[in-house]
Amino acid sequence: MTKTVDLNADMGESFGPWVMGQDAALLEVISSANIACGFHAGDPDVMAQTMGLAAQKGVGIGAHPGFHDLQGFGRRRMHLPDKTLRHMIQYQLGAAQGIARAAGAQVRHLKLHGALANMTSEDFGLAQACFGAALEAAPEIIIMVLAATQQQRAVERLDCLWAGEIFADRAYNEDATLVDRSLAGAVIHDPQEAAQRVVNMVQAGAILPAKGDPIPAAVDTICLHGDGETAVTMAQAVRAGLAEAGVTIQPFQGRRGAL
Amino acid sequence: MTKTVDLNADMGESFGPWVMGQDAALLEVISSANIACGFHAGDPDVMAQTMGLAAQKGVGIGAHPGFHDLQGFGRRRMHLPDKTLRHMIQYQLGAAQGIARAAGAQVRHLKLHGALANMTSEDFGLAQACFGAALEAAPEIIIMVLAATQQQRAVERLDCLWAGEIFADRAYNEDATLVDRSLAGAVIHDPQEAAQRVVNMVQAGAILPAKGDPIPAAVDTICLHGDGETAVTMAQAVRAGLAEAGVTIQPFQGRRGAL
Amino acid sequence: MTKTVDLNADMGESFGPWVMGQDAALLEVISSANIACGFHAGDPDVMAQTMGLAAQKGVGIGAHPGFHDLQGFGRRRMHLPDKTLRHMIQYQLGAAQGIARAAGAQVRHLKLHGALANMTSEDFGLAQACFGAALEAAPEIIIMVLAATQQQRAVERLDCLWAGEIFADRAYNEDATLVDRSLAGAVIHDPQEAAQRVVNMVQAGAILPAKGDPIPAAVDTICLHGDGETAVTMAQAVRAGLAEAGVTIQPFQGRRGAL
Amino acid sequence: MTKTVDLNADMGESFGPWVMGQDAALLEVISSANIACGFHAGDPDVMAQTMGLAAQKGVGIGAHPGFHDLQGFGRRRMHLPDKTLRHMIQYQLGAAQGIARAAGAQVRHLKLHGALANMTSEDFGLAQACFGAALEAAPEIIIMVLAATQQQRAVERLDCLWAGEIFADRAYNEDATLVDRSLAGAVIHDPQEAAQRVVNMVQAGAILPAKGDPIPAAVDTICLHGDGETAVTMAQAVRAGLAEAGVTIQPFQGRRGAL
Repeated sequence: MTKTVDLNADMGESFGPWVMGQDAALLEVISSANIACGFHAGDPDVMAQTMGLAAQKGVGIGAHPGFHDLQGFGRRRMHLPDKTLRHMIQYQLGAAQGIARAAGAQVRHLKLHGALANMTSEDFGLAQACFGAALEAAPEIIIMVLAATQQQRAVERLDCLWAGEIFADRAYNEDATLVDRSLAGAVIHDPQEAAQRVVNMVQAGAILPAKGDPIPAAVDTICLHGDGETAVTMAQAVRAGLAEAGVTIQPFQGRRGAL
Repeated sequence: MTKTVDLNADMGESFGPWVMGQDAALLEVISSANIACGFHAGDPDVMAQTMGLAAQKGVGIGAHPGFHDLQGFGRRRMHLPDKTLRHMIQYQLGAAQGIARAAGAQVRHLKLHGALANMTSEDFGLAQACFGAALEAAPEIIIMVLAATQQQRAVERLDCLWAGEIFADRAYNEDATLVDRSLAGAVIHDPQEAAQRVVNMVQAGAILPAKGDPIPAAVDTICLHGDGETAVTMAQAVRAGLAEAGVTIQPFQGRRGAL
Repeated sequence: MTKTVDLNADMGESFGPWVMGQDAALLEVISSANIACGFHAGDPDVMAQTMGLAAQKGVGIGAHPGFHDLQGFGRRRMHLPDKTLRHMIQYQLGAAQGIARAAGAQVRHLKLHGALANMTSEDFGLAQACFGAALEAAPEIIIMVLAATQQQRAVERLDCLWAGEIFADRAYNEDATLVDRSLAGAVIHDPQEAAQRVVNMVQAGAILPAKGDPIPAAVDTICLHGDGETAVTMAQAVRAGLAEAGVTIQPFQGRRGAL
Repeated sequence: MTKTVDLNADMGESFGPWVMGQDAALLEVISSANIACGFHAGDPDVMAQTMGLAAQKGVGIGAHPGFHDLQGFGRRRMHLPDKTLRHMIQYQLGAAQGIARAAGAQVRHLKLHGALANMTSEDFGLAQACFGAALEAAPEIIIMVLAATQQQRAVERLDCLWAGEIFADRAYNEDATLVDRSLAGAVIHDPQEAAQRVVNMVQAGAILPAKGDPIPAAVDTICLHGDGETAVTMAQAVRAGLAEAGVTIQPFQGRRGAL
């Protein structure tokens, strides 16, 4: 059976006069785009332009909501009541849908950004609240989760469509958590090495930690970073490596229930 | 034939810790609520709460987008490129739809707020751009327009569903513009007088200026103000006056094409 | 020797079209005003108006910086790098000084708001960073601290002018922390009772916990709340009680060094 | 007598995660820096970093306030009451002073940004309101004005310290207005040509329009643009040209009264 996998990247992170990322180049490589919704980055003009371009390239469009914190780029933890978090996500998701519809496109998936992603990967209740809120606003949406985290537990419980995500350029510990960035080998800088790891994980259907046994995982989509000088080179290497290994790259369809 | 008319008011204009308006009381009186979308007032929590309450009362929900200017409450004119205006409206409309869906409700209509309403009532091209943008995001939506202004000309041209709005408490000139607030008699403060005028205009299907002949108009909905000490009293008097005159109050269904 | 004490309240918490608090009435009662600086509440117009009124009444003006979070009113904890916190405080303090100078007034003191106040009352390093930053921008400023917290430890170490604050309407535990709001008796609602407690604490120069011994404290200023229906009544009762007990109410001059 | 002139550029226009401009390189060339104050660009961290660097290089620090419009970079016209404009400027100027003092530096001058600069160059009353407001907050500040515009008329009337500014790379009409950007020759792209023009204007003490006679002007400072690929090259060429012509480059001292 032919293996398939999705490649995703965050984009639409420019704001007003400020440009960020290499969206046009990455849209040639990826199959799903996580598009900022104006709270931590992006503005309605940037959203419309990015979605229009993604639609044109056949790239799946995702809403990428985050904390309302432009200065901190949504990377600073904020402690909000669950109710406020829920509405914050519904608002951003709805806004993304409005812009997408006007661009003749649609929002297929949702991925949480920055500190909100980190907090929900550690906290089952929070993940359930956030994803549940998204599903109330868009029951048909596919939730992208960090594989083998509390995010995944939450979507397994919510009985929704979901897709598991692993990182192309980050080493994993034996318990499927990421190796701390302060440790040697935590971040893989060599495109070829990253590409080979991704191929291995896709073919194994498992996270392959630096030490220890493979951890069976929902390897549905590979996260590629959009910033940094080597982002495009890395993305291209991963895509080429997968193609060479006979893996088909296409937008995920979503799975349902427990892994 | 029984006459029908809609009563509308702006609401959901609280923000964070700051309360504005008498939404709960007005929702007992009106049939359509124009709900702020977070740019000039309102926040996702306020939107959710207001929409939930409106849905519960059977009041039609409208998106009420404005300029991104909390301090100025969307009442200060800003000069934005048409493209930016279009996306700004689609964003707010989409956000309102997201919150509404999550509340088990839906956004039926759209009304522009503040300076954006004033500018589009004077500028046909601007009105067409703004309403056209809304229709791209929500083709089925009913556009509420200030009767006999460039807003109305725009929706007549756009071939969409629309509803004409007149004011309960403002006097009109012979050309259907509002009497300048600085002139005597521009604002009607007496609830009974306002109620009688509204009844007369609904029954005539016309704007009745202070001087001069009736101006046939799309009297589909009456704008009631939500702030001020007498807002609720005024709204109740208008409702009572209409009921007494045998006019049915219900959400507008929208009309299509030229008046 | 005649005892003296200062009465303070937060004010200038309106924003744009939204009104909050009863500033005019409270300015007749207090001797120091903590004025919001536009990040969690207040805007330049509100700041100018409030400072002008305070100056006219002979009330000491304080900058009251908080997190940049209007929707959350600065009450939601945010985790920012120390450097960012420092600049955030210097920015707001400088802005307050700019507005004050233009109003012919000056900023005498600084008090942290909301979550920032709570976090610094628990964390010595954070308190030192925040107050140190303020002193870099205004070496002569008097820092108002929550008595017997890490805030006080910080100013004792910083060798600056400071004033200790206790609450008129909150009960204290034996370790000088506040009784949790969820417990009976945590909040004192009766103005006379609050007034008597304040008189007792001022005369004792100590916090008087619900149970246990007096805790010697820098009782330099009494915090009165500006919101709520009974805020003004409570403030007036405290002022009247102090006057009757022969305590002079005047702006604090600041103390230096350890208690 | 040796001629002297100042070179200025806008900087500190990064915001949160978004980088703009080539501040470090330009600070080697200019003698005065106009630093964004957080309303249209810049944030407290960026301000502190930029001011620290400017102070270190001996570059004069200026506050560069603009409209509160990050998305539009302060380039979109907003219609605000004079009172609001005044406080908006005092707030930003004070904030800049707070950050500067903490960095061991001081704010020497003020220049208005973007749409606010354009509007005040056309409207004497508006210019007087804005500059008068700045002087209320900082009586000793030097106001940088667009030479031969209503801004200049305003400072002549206000009896304050001021400095006249001309553009290195823009052609002037016979009435001292800028040649419209849509016309050929409006913008000078060649660094050598720009440098020669600047030398000529500094030596003549006059604006030299494309056609017609020299217009005597306060050529106190030359505006260099900070963005664009050739910004640094252009700035270096202007500096080199002035040096070669024997003109000393140093921060302006300000002049007083009519030209």
